Amino acid sequence: MLTDSLSGLPTPCLLVDAEKMQANIQAMNAQLGRLDVPLRPHLKTCKNIEIAQAMLAGHPGGVTVSTLAEADYFFSHGIQDLLYAVGIAPGKLTAVAQRLEAGMNISIILDQEATAEAVVKAARQHGCRYRVLLEIDADGARAGFKADAATLPDTALKLDAGGVEVAGIMVHAGGSYACCSQQAIIDMAETERRSAVTAAERLRSLGLACPEVSIGSTPTALRATALAGVTEVRAGVYVFQDLVMAGLGVCSESDIALSVMTEVIGHRPATGEVLVDAGWMALSRDRGTASQRRDRGYGLVRDLHGGDLGELIVRATNQEHGIVSQADGGKVDLADFPVGRRLRILPNHACATAAQHTHFWLTLPDAVPRRLERCMGW
Amino acid sequence: MLTDSLSGLPTPCLLVDAEKMQANIQAMNAQLGRLDVPLRPHLKTCKNIEIAQAMLAGHPGGVTVSTLAEADYFFSHGIQDLLYAVGIAPGKLTAVAQRLEAGMNISIILDQEATAEAVVKAARQHGCRYRVLLEIDADGARAGFKADAATLPDTALKLDAGGVEVAGIMVHAGGSYACCSQQAIIDMAETERRSAVTAAERLRSLGLACPEVSIGSTPTALRATALAGVTEVRAGVYVFQDLVMAGLGVCSESDIALSVMTEVIGHRPATGEVLVDAGWMALSRDRGTASQRRDRGYGLVRDLHGGDLGELIVRATNQEHGIVSQADGGKVDLADFPVGRRLRILPNHACATAAQHTHFWLTLPDAVPRRLERCMGW
Repeated sequence: MLTDSLSGLPTPCLLVDAEKMQANIQAMNAQLGRLDVPLRPHLKTCKNIEIAQAMLAGHPGGVTVSTLAEADYFFSHGIQDLLYAVGIAPGKLTAVAQRLEAGMNISIILDQEATAEAVVKAARQHGCRYRVLLEIDADGARAGFKADAATLPDTALKLDAGGVEVAGIMVHAGGSYACCSQQAIIDMAETERRSAVTAAERLRSLGLACPEVSIGSTPTALRATALAGVTEVRAGVYVFQDLVMAGLGVCSESDIALSVMTEVIGHRPATGEVLVDAGWMALSRDRGTASQRRDRGYGLVRDLHGGDLGELIVRATNQEHGIVSQADGGKVDLADFPVGRRLRILPNHACATAAQHTHFWLTLPDAVPRRLERCMGW
Repeated sequence: MLTDSLSGLPTPCLLVDAEKMQANIQAMNAQLGRLDVPLRPHLKTCKNIEIAQAMLAGHPGGVTVSTLAEADYFFSHGIQDLLYAVGIAPGKLTAVAQRLEAGMNISIILDQEATAEAVVKAARQHGCRYRVLLEIDADGARAGFKADAATLPDTALKLDAGGVEVAGIMVHAGGSYACCSQQAIIDMAETERRSAVTAAERLRSLGLACPEVSIGSTPTALRATALAGVTEVRAGVYVFQDLVMAGLGVCSESDIALSVMTEVIGHRPATGEVLVDAGWMALSRDRGTASQRRDRGYGLVRDLHGGDLGELIVRATNQEHGIVSQADGGKVDLADFPVGRRLRILPNHACATAAQHTHFWLTLPDAVPRRLERCMGW
């Protein structure tokens, strides 16, 4: 039944296994229930309201987004409380002011004194009260004040004096994606927590309330053992999981809910390889497993039902072609992969693969797949 | 004036310099004029009708596409003659039959005897006359019959006997992207031509007319010295050019018409790096220059006007963050890149970067940028 309905979909296309997705949501909820901290799901992975609502069940209702387009899309579908979790560009402050004016409860983040000055100036210009979280760097991987930086209290006080609401602290330990052991992820989660709580205490010692202490990444959220002082966790990839997460050991490959359906279009007998109609346009160029113990090329190949086919990977991609090989370089038995056979490819990185598609097909056993649209652009 | 109008656009966004684009079109037209072969432009790079029309000026009017969504989009804008240049998946034959029925002059390609059998079967089932080009492998890089393969005439005759129009031969020497010298590209162009012409002669010796001998890639099209026996050239990247093409020496960096506009959102003083609001979502994960002499990371950084800033590259990307570094590892003078400064990033691969965006902004001096939509999906 599922097979028949899948056969009617054009390839390549993006499938979400609704049961696996729901199990991933339950696993995160169970973990955060144990830690007694609510979730502010990051919606940059799914970019769809129905999946967002499934992620929000049992949580306060605030979400995280990575673009103003996502903020607009989710707000238009009834989500009020949005954290735009990319250091704000001064050029976007007018757009943020317009959204505050329209009734959106949007918070922004920053980690630069110069940005704080731009926010204070824009607040005066637009007559609005921006709500700001200060980003703290836990792992040296990307952005954020060091938790002990002298500029952190200076910036907070400058914002406060300028009529800007200093709502709290946010940390994203993206370095967790490069951890090499479960203990390293557990340690990273504690580093993330401590950086956030330390920075929040510094702000409170200045007399600022700093009600929000927001941390998170899928690996640290799933492996944290205690989150004292943290008021919310952010995570997004967990809803689908992916090969990078499986490589980190925070899920198994059978948990991965996202896949690209593709069809065999040819053979390369000399090399024992199979050509499929999913290239980087459908899979993305993400090579996140390249630095892990098991490199899965551009994705791991499964049968149409998601069943195991061994270490069959997409070795190379062009725009609309994928070349499927044995990971060990051995030849594929081409008779098993006739032209017209359909397959699924599990993604390295759920965010990147999903980003290549305007919509998903949500699959459930014995039901016709249902199309879910995704928010696009900025 | 241009600067002011650019400042009004949200970042990140995709810019097309109309003057550079027109110069690239003229350069290709001049080259093909010398070789006396018309162009069937590949529209998978631009995916926009206005740019397609600029590419088509002076040529017969046929185009190349990489998805049925592109075929539908361009057909709806008046383009009749479409070559769908990805080995046809049997699962798409009903969709192709529907388009033939709707009056679309669409040609498909194949390189498998099994696919030919599926096409013959579908032709009978749908009562339509498919038009097929046989794909020939010139470089071992991807797909195609070997020009001397025994299965080539067998397949052609099977199609012909099954009521399918065998319209000719197509070759794409994608291996040209990996050439290490101008002479290697010239040689690759001749290999591409010879493979196509040899295969066409084999079909003609069977009594098939084989009117079309279609070859092309941007490097081979721009460097071919003679194209005897070839009836049309396909190329698409040339319209924008990119860093991979500049690395191959088939254009200069100043020819690149496509860029991503971004804004500085922060500094990393410890490493002397700049954070911008263009990550892999805006740039793509393409690392096409990684295997070239000069690795440009995820793109080469220019000032807002496109002016040279030296070897400043996007070293790393997250979904909505880019980290800008000196290519040699030296520290960037952060005072030159204040928060809020806007920059442009030249792409490794025009197709991949453009694919991340639903629209372009076409820029001309002293004019307000004009928004051009792109066709999405499959």
